[in-house]
Amino acid sequence: MSVVIGIAGGSGSGKTTVQRRIVEAFGPRRIALLAHDAYYRDLSHLPPDARAAFNFDHPDALETDLMVQHLDLLRAGETIAKPTYDFTAHTRRAETVGVEPLPVIIVEGILVLAEPDLRARMDIKIFVDAEADVRLIRRLRRDMAERGRSVESVLAQYTHYVRPMHREFVEPSKRHADVIIPRGGRNQVAIDMMVARVQTLLDEDAGS
Amino acid sequence: MSVVIGIAGGSGSGKTTVQRRIVEAFGPRRIALLAHDAYYRDLSHLPPDARAAFNFDHPDALETDLMVQHLDLLRAGETIAKPTYDFTAHTRRAETVGVEPLPVIIVEGILVLAEPDLRARMDIKIFVDAEADVRLIRRLRRDMAERGRSVESVLAQYTHYVRPMHREFVEPSKRHADVIIPRGGRNQVAIDMMVARVQTLLDEDAGS
Repeated sequence: MSVVIGIAGGSGSGKTTVQRRIVEAFGPRRIALLAHDAYYRDLSHLPPDARAAFNFDHPDALETDLMVQHLDLLRAGETIAKPTYDFTAHTRRAETVGVEPLPVIIVEGILVLAEPDLRARMDIKIFVDAEADVRLIRRLRRDMAERGRSVESVLAQYTHYVRPMHREFVEPSKRHADVIIPRGGRNQVAIDMMVARVQTLLDEDAGS
Repeated sequence: MSVVIGIAGGSGSGKTTVQRRIVEAFGPRRIALLAHDAYYRDLSHLPPDARAAFNFDHPDALETDLMVQHLDLLRAGETIAKPTYDFTAHTRRAETVGVEPLPVIIVEGILVLAEPDLRARMDIKIFVDAEADVRLIRRLRRDMAERGRSVESVLAQYTHYVRPMHREFVEPSKRHADVIIPRGGRNQVAIDMMVARVQTLLDEDAGS
C-alpha cells in the first residue's frame, strides 16, 4: 500500500516548493503526484464571460469525487488517466496523463484538507502556512510574471475570491493537519522530518 | 554532538505529553531533559506576598543564561548539575540533579522559542499548539486536581499573568518554529515524524 501525503495551504504558501523538495528526496520514480487543480470542472457549458467570473477557489469548482476514485485506484495498484485542464478556456482537455501507482502519493491543493473523503485516505496531513500578506506578494508576482496579468486584475480576483474562500475553507481546514509547516519550501528542518518519516514508512512496508 | 529538540507551546498545550512520547520512543538512557521550569529565579529576597504575586509567565522570571550554559556543557559532553525549584516557597532548592550528556537533548518550556540563545542551539524547533479554551480547560483541571487550587485562584492567575504573557511572548514565538503540532500528545503522525527525523540524525551521527 502506498503512503499518501496530503499537502494543503493557501495560494502562495509554498505548497509546490514543499512538494518539489519531497520529490527531490525520493526521486520522481517513487512519487505519484495528484494535484487537485487537475480536477477543475469543465466549464464549456458556460459562456466565456461567466467562466472568467467563476469562483475557482470554492470546493464546488473541483470534481473531487473523480480525484477520490483515482486515488483509490492508485492505492489499489492501478494506473489512472489524470485529466488535464485548459486554464485559459476553463475546459477539461481531451488528453489525459497516465499516472502510475508508486510507493508515495502526494495529494496537493489549497482545499485537499477541506475534503473529508481526501483526508480519510491520507497517512500524513501537511498544512503549509504563510502569513496572508506574504502569500499575496507571491501571488501578485507569480500571476504578473507567469500569466501576464495586471496588478488590478490580480488584486480584484484576490479580494473577490481568493481571500474570502481562504477564510471560509482553507484556513479552517488547517485544524485537520497533523503538522503545520511555516516558511514552506525554505523550511529544511520540516522537510527533513517529512522525508525521514516517509522513508521509515517505506522501509516498514518493504520489510513486512 | 547531541541533537537538540526545543519543545514550546502554551500552558496546557500538550508539550509534556509530546516530550513523554519522544522519551518513550528512544528510552530515557538516550534523552537528556532540560525543562525551563527548573531555572526559575530564586525569590527568597522577596517577602512571601510578593512571591505569590510574581509574574512567573514572564521571561525575566527565568534564569535563561544559566540554562544556556548548561545546554552548552551538555553539548560539549559534560554532566551538569541542574537546579531544582521549590514551587511552594518560590526558591531554588539546595539540591541539584545531575544530568548526563546524552545523544538527544530536549529543551522544553512555554518560552524556549522566545529566547534567541536557546533557539540558536536547537536542531529542531517544535511548537505544540492548542486553542486557548482547550488549554484553559486543561490548566483548570490540572491546577485544581494536582495543586489543590480553587477555581477562582486559577482563573485570576490565568487572566492576570498566563493569558497576557501568552499573547505577548508565547504566541509570537510560534513563528520561529520549524513545525507546529496541533493536538499535542494525541497527534501520533506528528510524533512519528519527529521520532523518524531524530533517528535519522542519530544514525548519521553514528555513521560519521
